[in-house]
Amino acid sequence: MKNIRVSDILLSEAEVESLVVKGWVRTKRESKEFVFLEINDGSCLKNLQAIVAADASGFELMDRVGTGAAVSLKGALVESPGQGQKWELKVRELELQGEADATYPLQKKRHTDEYLRTIAHLRPRTNKYGALNRIRAELSFGVHQFFREQGFFHVHAPIITGSDCEGAGEMFQITTLDLANVPKKNGKADFEQDFFGKEASLTVSGQLAAENLACALGRVYTFGPTFRAENSNTPKHAAEFWMIEPEMAFADLEDNMDLGEDCIKWLITHLLDNCRDDLELFGNFVDKGLFATLDNILAKPFIRLPYAEAVTILKNAPRTFEFPVDFGTDLQTEHERYLTEDHFKQPVIVFDYPKEIKAFYMRLNDDGKTVGAMDVLVPRIGELIGGSAREERLSVLERRIEELGLPKEEYWWYLDLRRFGSVPHAGFGMGFERLLMLVTGIANIRDVIPFPRTPRHLEF
Amino acid sequence: MKNIRVSDILLSEAEVESLVVKGWVRTKRESKEFVFLEINDGSCLKNLQAIVAADASGFELMDRVGTGAAVSLKGALVESPGQGQKWELKVRELELQGEADATYPLQKKRHTDEYLRTIAHLRPRTNKYGALNRIRAELSFGVHQFFREQGFFHVHAPIITGSDCEGAGEMFQITTLDLANVPKKNGKADFEQDFFGKEASLTVSGQLAAENLACALGRVYTFGPTFRAENSNTPKHAAEFWMIEPEMAFADLEDNMDLGEDCIKWLITHLLDNCRDDLELFGNFVDKGLFATLDNILAKPFIRLPYAEAVTILKNAPRTFEFPVDFGTDLQTEHERYLTEDHFKQPVIVFDYPKEIKAFYMRLNDDGKTVGAMDVLVPRIGELIGGSAREERLSVLERRIEELGLPKEEYWWYLDLRRFGSVPHAGFGMGFERLLMLVTGIANIRDVIPFPRTPRHLEF
Repeated sequence: MKNIRVSDILLSEAEVESLVVKGWVRTKRESKEFVFLEINDGSCLKNLQAIVAADASGFELMDRVGTGAAVSLKGALVESPGQGQKWELKVRELELQGEADATYPLQKKRHTDEYLRTIAHLRPRTNKYGALNRIRAELSFGVHQFFREQGFFHVHAPIITGSDCEGAGEMFQITTLDLANVPKKNGKADFEQDFFGKEASLTVSGQLAAENLACALGRVYTFGPTFRAENSNTPKHAAEFWMIEPEMAFADLEDNMDLGEDCIKWLITHLLDNCRDDLELFGNFVDKGLFATLDNILAKPFIRLPYAEAVTILKNAPRTFEFPVDFGTDLQTEHERYLTEDHFKQPVIVFDYPKEIKAFYMRLNDDGKTVGAMDVLVPRIGELIGGSAREERLSVLERRIEELGLPKEEYWWYLDLRRFGSVPHAGFGMGFERLLMLVTGIANIRDVIPFPRTPRHLEF
Repeated sequence: MKNIRVSDILLSEAEVESLVVKGWVRTKRESKEFVFLEINDGSCLKNLQAIVAADASGFELMDRVGTGAAVSLKGALVESPGQGQKWELKVRELELQGEADATYPLQKKRHTDEYLRTIAHLRPRTNKYGALNRIRAELSFGVHQFFREQGFFHVHAPIITGSDCEGAGEMFQITTLDLANVPKKNGKADFEQDFFGKEASLTVSGQLAAENLACALGRVYTFGPTFRAENSNTPKHAAEFWMIEPEMAFADLEDNMDLGEDCIKWLITHLLDNCRDDLELFGNFVDKGLFATLDNILAKPFIRLPYAEAVTILKNAPRTFEFPVDFGTDLQTEHERYLTEDHFKQPVIVFDYPKEIKAFYMRLNDDGKTVGAMDVLVPRIGELIGGSAREERLSVLERRIEELGLPKEEYWWYLDLRRFGSVPHAGFGMGFERLLMLVTGIANIRDVIPFPRTPRHLEF
């Protein structure tokens, strides 16, 4: 007899004479006549209550059935007379699949997030991290569903890259050279002898590859891992994280803002529709204001604010900032959060940034000073999305590359997109983990990714 | 007025008085009175035929509108009197968005795959690689849809790993050390000074991470990039490729075989339902037998064949092999293809391999000689899936680790899964690119991934 998952059992519309459930014991409670087991199989937050009487087959194993043990239970699904659940399982046969002895680290209910990071292989067995992983999975699916419905094709940008010209951050090097004995040529490492015959790094963004494909397929998005070799020990930064990067041909900055706003709202709605129980755990125990935050994001059109106006608001703010602001300075998280949390109290899209603080590929505005960049700022997180219209005019792009002293010959293929059938196009990057932090209220990126990688941390 | 995509326009049920389409010119043909443009915007294989008369606004630009140029066309969608298309666009206004001059490499219709690899940024603009990328996107979505419908949660295994004990192949090293001047300690590279404070590599498999999560969430799958630093220049091997790795708790080898077979059949059906036009291109121009192959895979249950029987068949085969076969030797592609293409003429799942040729984590069978491994073999490709039941018995697993001289202390967390609530579980890995080769008939892995990475090749 095949086992049925708890999530399906709890939706049963009638009693079931005989079924098998397999899962892990979350709690065990003994009365005079019965043992009550709360069974969780990871399929949902809720447990199935199982009642084992002394005459059940396998009852003699009960001494070895404790928190964390894996069991297989056969019995009848009946209406529960007790509070808090509709159904319970009257067990006829108990099989012990795997014990968990007194050293099992998740015996006690409450552990700090810091401790749970040291047992990241077990933390998904807790209510909180089980819920997080289910939300992560459903949010990931939602990303694919949203973009597909909008006519976007999922493309896979390369992870290993030969250009260090993406310019989005410090890169990890990749090599097969013997690090104890690196071959040299003119005092430098001889990459001619390396696997690829040249320097290789981990990608910081799939954007340039996505642009190639958007200029053929029209609308594409990547959803893959990206990397930063930055020694940042903040709750918002990890060395490895997943990023969603849509890219649209025949689109301008306004289309881009529309897409970003639609995407965030669609995904939040998708989670509210599909992960209600798991989200409620976070609303109850992690961030009491979670649902108010999410409802507020859905309620109104996002504010769209030129950078110059943002600077004026910040200069006039009735508080001081650690970093002073003036036209030409980049916005820090404190500024971003002030705009979205305090001033507007809703998401804000800041656009038209000074060209000096943005990347070479962003489209130069007619004022010659600003570029068609946009950042979407949300409460608690600050920047969730960063994007831009891309410079599609060959001569303007070449001039920018020269101004910045970038190695133009390395961009031959990127410039080709502007040589042959160039089109206005735009796109953005959204950090998947930041989005998860937004929708769960979790404050540390280390707790929204199964096995976080940060400076000096590479466990599991 | 927003532009409408060609894929939507071609499905129109009535004439449309005014619409805008934006795309690239595939061909241009001139008659006395009209210019005929075939417009493709990447949304589908088919083009939209546009007819521009001399009185259309912007007609004076027509000299500069050639193959590869990007245009915006406004006009009326009317029934086409011509052969081969239902609708055509009578253009009232033509705008030239981006020219493509005579140096545009895709002027001519036919190019070799080898040449197109050198312009991988442009090849998605051809019919073949446009179709490939759309199939790739839809197959990718299908993977997510299939597993979600089966109750699996998508999890993200880490890409950077600190253990070189996955044992599936040669690994790339990751570092932030200065390769021209690697710090040393006792003659070895001093990884204490590296980003993670220890050696770091690119993952060869997400399996062990997936096992952690399956032992909490029940059913999970990864779908991410994996890496091999192997100097293999074959049509089947790339240094970077995407792999799908499901893992199921409370499951055995038979469940695993069922899942693999169901998955392949579901995905092929999904593509036949959703990508018919694009698949037909491959059936017509790349592999005339493509649809027969796909139909044959769907037609019957896969053969399930113990390894020992496979060896007997191969030893009795009426042909010679480059590599001789006997019980205890690993099967080569030539053997795999003989079984599936010549002997059975359908997919074959070979299972119960000798433990000596399989990984330490595979579940030991009662005979003490074989393990619960399985490989799914399909025509043209050979091994498409490799998987196993995992050894869930702590003492048996520890003995295997010791027998093989592996560093047991590094597996503390993997062994924990067997210490605490251990359950029978099973899973497999399926190479996404190999699956794409199967469903398109494309013979070289370099042509099913947008920007392939192979030894000495790291372009774009």
